[in-house]
Amino acid sequence: MNKFGMYVKFTTHEGQRDAFAQILLEAAAGMQSTEACELYIVNVSDSEPETVWVTEIWSDSAAHEASLAMEETKEMIQRARPLIASVEQIKLRPLGGKGV
Amino acid sequence: MNKFGMYVKFTTHEGQRDAFAQILLEAAAGMQSTEACELYIVNVSDSEPETVWVTEIWSDSAAHEASLAMEETKEMIQRARPLIASVEQIKLRPLGGKGV
Repeated sequence: MNKFGMYVKFTTHEGQRDAFAQILLEAAAGMQSTEACELYIVNVSDSEPETVWVTEIWSDSAAHEASLAMEETKEMIQRARPLIASVEQIKLRPLGGKGV
Repeated sequence: MNKFGMYVKFTTHEGQRDAFAQILLEAAAGMQSTEACELYIVNVSDSEPETVWVTEIWSDSAAHEASLAMEETKEMIQRARPLIASVEQIKLRPLGGKGV
């Protein structure tokens, strides 16, 4: 299995979480037609009010890299950047399981 | 959306990661028939050699709780416990996206 996974933790500026999550949900809708994007799930955390976690799985890391060059992605990052205080990534290698 | 999500970080004792991941993959196979378990993905991390991350999404938190009482789960925990050094959980509320 050559898939590429990531947990991305976004910390937003105060009060901006929901607006930011909405932008990510739109991005996820846009990924429906991107076959190489297998999972793009937007999560919030009840214990951290300014945090949004995104679960991503791509067919491989090259597919993920290529997505960053897409116009839609650049436009989304442009819109979202003012709302973001920090970003942390946990890179993963999915082995298998249910839903992948 | 009332779904319940989690990232669970297991740190294994030295050299036990792959044996532990195998037990989790068997558990994931057993979840195929558990409808309330929507995602159960076993991941490793190339930057942390003794770490296994599990991505879970359940239809709700009660379904997750109920799964802990299942015989198969108890048996899996019994087998896996000697391999585990520590466990950390990040509880999540999935909002939506691709694959959920």
